[in-house]
Amino acid sequence: MKNWMKSLMLCLFVLPVAAVMMPAIGWAQEGVSSEMFTVNNLWMMVSTFLVFIMHLGFATLEAGLCRSKNTTNILFKNTLIPAIGLLTYAAFGFNLMYPGDFMIGKFFGFAGFGITTDAAGITSSYNVGYTYWTDFLFQGMFAATCATIVSGCVAERVKLSSFLIFSTVFVGLVYPIAGSWKWGAGWLDEMGFYDFAGSTLVHSVGGWGGLAGIILLGPRIGKYVNGKVNPIMGHSMPLCVIGTFLLWLGWFGFNGGSVLSADAGLVSFVLVTTSLAAGAGMIGSMLVSWTVSKKPDLSMILNGTLAGLVGITAGADTVSVMSSVIIGFVAGVLVVFAVMFFDKVKLDDPVGALSVHLVCGVWGTLAVGIFSTNPEHSFMVQLIGVAAYGAFAFATAFATFLVLKVTIGLRVHAGEELRGLDVGEHGMEAYSGFQTFTVV
Amino acid sequence: MKNWMKSLMLCLFVLPVAAVMMPAIGWAQEGVSSEMFTVNNLWMMVSTFLVFIMHLGFATLEAGLCRSKNTTNILFKNTLIPAIGLLTYAAFGFNLMYPGDFMIGKFFGFAGFGITTDAAGITSSYNVGYTYWTDFLFQGMFAATCATIVSGCVAERVKLSSFLIFSTVFVGLVYPIAGSWKWGAGWLDEMGFYDFAGSTLVHSVGGWGGLAGIILLGPRIGKYVNGKVNPIMGHSMPLCVIGTFLLWLGWFGFNGGSVLSADAGLVSFVLVTTSLAAGAGMIGSMLVSWTVSKKPDLSMILNGTLAGLVGITAGADTVSVMSSVIIGFVAGVLVVFAVMFFDKVKLDDPVGALSVHLVCGVWGTLAVGIFSTNPEHSFMVQLIGVAAYGAFAFATAFATFLVLKVTIGLRVHAGEELRGLDVGEHGMEAYSGFQTFTVV
Amino acid sequence: MKNWMKSLMLCLFVLPVAAVMMPAIGWAQEGVSSEMFTVNNLWMMVSTFLVFIMHLGFATLEAGLCRSKNTTNILFKNTLIPAIGLLTYAAFGFNLMYPGDFMIGKFFGFAGFGITTDAAGITSSYNVGYTYWTDFLFQGMFAATCATIVSGCVAERVKLSSFLIFSTVFVGLVYPIAGSWKWGAGWLDEMGFYDFAGSTLVHSVGGWGGLAGIILLGPRIGKYVNGKVNPIMGHSMPLCVIGTFLLWLGWFGFNGGSVLSADAGLVSFVLVTTSLAAGAGMIGSMLVSWTVSKKPDLSMILNGTLAGLVGITAGADTVSVMSSVIIGFVAGVLVVFAVMFFDKVKLDDPVGALSVHLVCGVWGTLAVGIFSTNPEHSFMVQLIGVAAYGAFAFATAFATFLVLKVTIGLRVHAGEELRGLDVGEHGMEAYSGFQTFTVV
Repeated sequence: MKNWMKSLMLCLFVLPVAAVMMPAIGWAQEGVSSEMFTVNNLWMMVSTFLVFIMHLGFATLEAGLCRSKNTTNILFKNTLIPAIGLLTYAAFGFNLMYPGDFMIGKFFGFAGFGITTDAAGITSSYNVGYTYWTDFLFQGMFAATCATIVSGCVAERVKLSSFLIFSTVFVGLVYPIAGSWKWGAGWLDEMGFYDFAGSTLVHSVGGWGGLAGIILLGPRIGKYVNGKVNPIMGHSMPLCVIGTFLLWLGWFGFNGGSVLSADAGLVSFVLVTTSLAAGAGMIGSMLVSWTVSKKPDLSMILNGTLAGLVGITAGADTVSVMSSVIIGFVAGVLVVFAVMFFDKVKLDDPVGALSVHLVCGVWGTLAVGIFSTNPEHSFMVQLIGVAAYGAFAFATAFATFLVLKVTIGLRVHAGEELRGLDVGEHGMEAYSGFQTFTVV
Repeated sequence: MKNWMKSLMLCLFVLPVAAVMMPAIGWAQEGVSSEMFTVNNLWMMVSTFLVFIMHLGFATLEAGLCRSKNTTNILFKNTLIPAIGLLTYAAFGFNLMYPGDFMIGKFFGFAGFGITTDAAGITSSYNVGYTYWTDFLFQGMFAATCATIVSGCVAERVKLSSFLIFSTVFVGLVYPIAGSWKWGAGWLDEMGFYDFAGSTLVHSVGGWGGLAGIILLGPRIGKYVNGKVNPIMGHSMPLCVIGTFLLWLGWFGFNGGSVLSADAGLVSFVLVTTSLAAGAGMIGSMLVSWTVSKKPDLSMILNGTLAGLVGITAGADTVSVMSSVIIGFVAGVLVVFAVMFFDKVKLDDPVGALSVHLVCGVWGTLAVGIFSTNPEHSFMVQLIGVAAYGAFAFATAFATFLVLKVTIGLRVHAGEELRGLDVGEHGMEAYSGFQTFTVV
Repeated sequence: MKNWMKSLMLCLFVLPVAAVMMPAIGWAQEGVSSEMFTVNNLWMMVSTFLVFIMHLGFATLEAGLCRSKNTTNILFKNTLIPAIGLLTYAAFGFNLMYPGDFMIGKFFGFAGFGITTDAAGITSSYNVGYTYWTDFLFQGMFAATCATIVSGCVAERVKLSSFLIFSTVFVGLVYPIAGSWKWGAGWLDEMGFYDFAGSTLVHSVGGWGGLAGIILLGPRIGKYVNGKVNPIMGHSMPLCVIGTFLLWLGWFGFNGGSVLSADAGLVSFVLVTTSLAAGAGMIGSMLVSWTVSKKPDLSMILNGTLAGLVGITAGADTVSVMSSVIIGFVAGVLVVFAVMFFDKVKLDDPVGALSVHLVCGVWGTLAVGIFSTNPEHSFMVQLIGVAAYGAFAFATAFATFLVLKVTIGLRVHAGEELRGLDVGEHGMEAYSGFQTFTVV
């Protein structure tokens, strides 16, 4: 009995030591030390920057693949999208996508307007991987990428005002609601659907939106004449390459950040599968395009790289290294044939965004059902997820574009299209002091 | 008594365990564990990279907003500035800005030539947030941005040699001495002046320097003719957009790094206010320019973005999320009217640097006095700081430019200006193999 | 005795506390806490991104320094190199360079095909600084830079297919085998040869490969006519400046990541020596080129910057701050004279890659023997290393190029060279909608 008392006394001595040390480590209260929380959050902030710079990648790639007479317009749209995206996401998007307890029937929820948090929001009791603020900013940067994909599909003919309204609806409402089904713990999450970083939730959703726009807008003047496809060349390959490299760079944050912590093993593994898929996509598209068109096509290997990246996005953490190479390679092959297919059915997609984001987004999501090392992932469930997102994104985007078409109009006048949207919409050429001529 | 002895014995067992663990955590000796020190320092290094890449942002933005015939010259200046900045900062600037105990009367101090440190300089006893070397490099990258702002104001007509001498003086002497008043713990710091990341210390100081240059140089040939303002268009909008995105990216380090540690809550909050202000500045400038000039102007929304970023820089850590949106929006509105105002008074600022850095730098500093959640911040003290920096920076810059004007000359010959500084100063066109014609 | 029992009991209480805490810190088993491991690995991942973006830097710099008619071709090569590099490195390169126990006679080893690891590979028992996956990806990004250097030397005349085959051999076999001599713990490592981040292992190896290509290819048509050197101007200075800044940025990871952990003191010191050498190289090349050619040459200060970076790479962690400035400055001076020398001996190097990577790579390696603060570094051993790498890299590259020359051919036809490789190899101009004319 006395011994127990002594033990108790010594415990009283030992515990304070532990108590002093524990807050320093943060481990006792939070499940993770304050050091680990800080490094996790640092990784998520770095990932946020990388996703941010994807917007410059999209802007330069899309501008480079289009004609110089529409460059100012493309740059304007792509510059504005992150602003629209972040502001609407702060106003309501974030709380639509992550409604928490406000989720109704696993299909829809809204946690209120604005962003705010209490003291706990900046500790690991909010999340061991990041603060509330980092969470918002990382997810907000993601949201904006979705609208950017549509931008490429409708380029060189869409009215600026209509596109800006569409983007606001798409990034502010469609994307977050759709996103909540999986990442907001909705019905598809419950069903076991898996989409690690958004092959479906971001890329195919953007692609479906773009498809709706392409159908309602019709092709650019001069693209399909008398049953013949006239290729319309981009005006600057350097811009395209800058864009593609920035997108690959950004994908390190897009996929790597989707681990939602700095977990050394998992993040670095994801970076490896992501990079090998990108490389394999490039090689796949090179081999096919070299074989089919006899010449190795630069714009095709750029799209092949992005195809590999989109393809690996759904399963970057859950497939083997060898599978990542296969997934990327297949995506690179698919993208070349998809580009030819869409031209065959006269869907005019100036930058190949449908081929990259829609086709390979679907492929990547289904690939999880084929290659995943996790036996709980099911091809059928993946298919259901693909179909559900396709139906919702296409329908809402189509409806939005349709309303715009019958009200303020969706397309610029033919004269403006021929002259270029830079002068028509902005009264400003993208290049001055270079002698330029327009190519239809 | 015997119990106490036993307790003691056990303590002898317990304490070594703690003693072994504590150095690993580093917490006992330094106030912060070695892990926390390493992650803090890592964040500061990443921030340094981000501020570094702002120099490429300034180079491409300024080049894009000017004419192709002056592109080589602009790129040359902006490439050289980080070299001049870092070398002078290493030689004496760093020790002028942070004189420590050598501060005399809170106005001036100098801790000697060169950079060096002892073993403690690379531990958390130097600073819990970074090593001596990180401190130097982060602050050195900041210093160089100041001269870059002037570069934009005097573009397309300043003599290269004069500008390089001015930059050396400005970045090596004027900026560090001015900086010491606040960040070197000088008189304005003592008075309670607040400038989180440099709306005044960096941006308005650079702007005042540019104003002095503009006054002494006069407008470019052909800009103001018979009371009419002739807009001189930039030659490449893609370069402008690349520049703006890189600057926004860099600002994550400029503001986020000014927390001076990786503090998860504070850094991520600063990133959110910074981003929302950038987005709001873009929207604000778009709405005003669309209303005023009927067409949405791309170069205006780029400057609006930067205006929002400059505006939030002084108070990014101390205003609410909603206030950051207001501050950015107002900055975006201000920049459009400022551009029109400076043209009205015939101050020819080719890239709008006065409107962005001077006007919105002042606005952001005063906004701390209005919106800060810290009751110790005072509008009057903010005003005193703005005035003090304005007087010092303008006077020293004016004097330096004046001495150059009366000695080696400040402006290139009219013939060289018309032909372009690329050929005149460098004997090299920026573009070759493109057919170019000059636009006056 | 009883006391000892009580002590024991209490120890039973104390030890579990320690046992629970230790795994959280990870320190007991691994030599480094899991927090430190995570932050180390995070730094290495960030460094990997920075080295990755160097590929965009090389692509834009090389494209900018060449003519617009060869831009698509240059971009194609430089985009493909990281894909080839990563895939071959995953297939066999990584296991050639780091053969571990499979090293035979310290000259060659191979640990088998493919990349894979066990559970320990993602803990600090693999390495305290990074996981197996991070190790692979960081080293893979390094490997690819080596082939990129050759790309610049052979630009504007090399056949695409031949270059791609050469690159695969060079990056997949030559670089890893050569690398194993030092970084794979081979004979030069045993001898005490020092090359911190690759002045020799990466840059001079790439340079020797390029020299072999230049000799076997001969100069571009029109470059040396009747004993006169005709300068062939690059087509876009903005692309060159973008490239140089991205390369400097990337070097923060190239050198900083070569510390192989996030060690606060050492990494930040390396960043300072790296930056000051870059700045001093720029100033050195500016002073010499301004003196020699009367006009300050932009492309020369860009190469001077890179020269300083290459020069400091071998000793960035082991020379003083002042020495780093001297090393960089000398490199900047050397590069100008080297460019003139190679033209004198009619070795046509379109981008100055020999002057930058070969000459300054050798200089930087020897500079370790002169300036190192570590008395174990010896000038003679450095010289042996330089010679050994030179002999191996030049001989293998020469043999590879020679086999290609006598089989499928190394050089495009004169007609294709005059018309431009963009149309000849790719059937696609880099710029469309700009009126261009070719400059021979």
